[in-house]
Amino acid sequence: MRILITNDDGIYAKGIEVLYHILAPEHDVYVVAPETEQSAVGHAITFLDPLRVKEVKRNGVFFGYAVNGTPADCVKLAIRELMRPLPDMVISGINHGANVGENVIYSGTVSAATEAAMLGFPSMAVSIDAYPAKDYSGPIAFLPKIIKLVENKNFPRGVSLNINFPHCPAEEIRGIKITRQGHLKYAETYDRRIDPRNRVYYWLCSQTAEYDSDEDTDSHAIQEKYIAITPIHYDLTHYPSLELLRKWFGEENRSCVKSAIGK
Amino acid sequence: MRILITNDDGIYAKGIEVLYHILAPEHDVYVVAPETEQSAVGHAITFLDPLRVKEVKRNGVFFGYAVNGTPADCVKLAIRELMRPLPDMVISGINHGANVGENVIYSGTVSAATEAAMLGFPSMAVSIDAYPAKDYSGPIAFLPKIIKLVENKNFPRGVSLNINFPHCPAEEIRGIKITRQGHLKYAETYDRRIDPRNRVYYWLCSQTAEYDSDEDTDSHAIQEKYIAITPIHYDLTHYPSLELLRKWFGEENRSCVKSAIGK
Repeated sequence: MRILITNDDGIYAKGIEVLYHILAPEHDVYVVAPETEQSAVGHAITFLDPLRVKEVKRNGVFFGYAVNGTPADCVKLAIRELMRPLPDMVISGINHGANVGENVIYSGTVSAATEAAMLGFPSMAVSIDAYPAKDYSGPIAFLPKIIKLVENKNFPRGVSLNINFPHCPAEEIRGIKITRQGHLKYAETYDRRIDPRNRVYYWLCSQTAEYDSDEDTDSHAIQEKYIAITPIHYDLTHYPSLELLRKWFGEENRSCVKSAIGK
Repeated sequence: MRILITNDDGIYAKGIEVLYHILAPEHDVYVVAPETEQSAVGHAITFLDPLRVKEVKRNGVFFGYAVNGTPADCVKLAIRELMRPLPDMVISGINHGANVGENVIYSGTVSAATEAAMLGFPSMAVSIDAYPAKDYSGPIAFLPKIIKLVENKNFPRGVSLNINFPHCPAEEIRGIKITRQGHLKYAETYDRRIDPRNRVYYWLCSQTAEYDSDEDTDSHAIQEKYIAITPIHYDLTHYPSLELLRKWFGEENRSCVKSAIGK
């Protein structure tokens, strides 16, 4: 396959180098990644500023293109402009730190895969549950097999795969679980400090206090040393609430909606 | 109610001033908003840099707090640190430009409401379908009524309201529609230019080419001069694909999952 790879830790991160070496033996790999770390940028895109592209070498060899933007920018710019022929698949990662539970919504790694899905390409985000990660033997052993299993499948339109690896030696990994996005409990505070010029500033301090105990969730699976694969999409509609809102606004009876707002 | 208001166009934008004046007569309003425009930042949060807070006056009167961060940062910092007692509701907007269809995923305005929902507060994002907006008579006439209709309701956990107004005089608004996030067709390109130092740069050019024709969608509703209200949440799981993925990875038979990846 022809694979576009990107990440959110930046083109000089260890994770994207590992991903490159996992994929390059069997695939035609094209790297377009952020010039600098873009963690927690969510699905940001850049349109108030111009984007620039730089060729990057690693170990003296051409590695890919660095963009002064976000992971979603990298995917959009690669597909709309830089990469011809177009990719068969887009893979983002390998991210330092799991993208499970509520973290998914903040994740630049995931947003790159989502952007690819929005543009109509099969895609996946790959993360490992450690910050920083030291042992990549899990992804090295199993990611090629996962890719082989999905490479000829028809991805449902707009759906991408959010793949999270436990951080343990490959031989300890117990298998794959198909999961849903779970919940995390955070211990989250702001550390209030005073700078040398006597001005206040705040650092966000956030730690996962508790993983989800539900067996079908992403965070539970990686805790149990399974690879978690969650199908994700970009439709934020909460369908179960549609009926409730229709009641709140009296939409069963169209004239009510108008009278509710005085029309 | 005690209402936290924020936006993504920045604390000096017209939309947040209009929102303030709509709410202030009946509610206790507290403003924490980005210092600068944060359009299309998605659900970015800041933790690689510290946040600073500045008091801002508008027309010589204290208006609120400006934060050198994103809309999600503003909500998180207000709730975790700045605002006591805590709000009864969080409202983000009024955004210049509709946040409908695929735009929702890029929207800083929406991410502020989503962040509030993640933290357990009833919330809504409010946008108007014009850039820039000139006529706010729709929100001025109907937003107080919408707030009255939802203020004592139990918001389902994690759900917020994405509210989009058509850009027309209030008397032309036909009512409210409860909608789902639809699809937009974009004409999206990068404009490749050469700077005075002979280096290439790219501007993202994006225009909505076609709104959704499905009657139950957000974008269709505002085209038809209805106020679109979509319940949104932050669980990106695509539930209909869980079964499909279980088949791809042979998870019906647990041993298959292991053998599929060679375990």
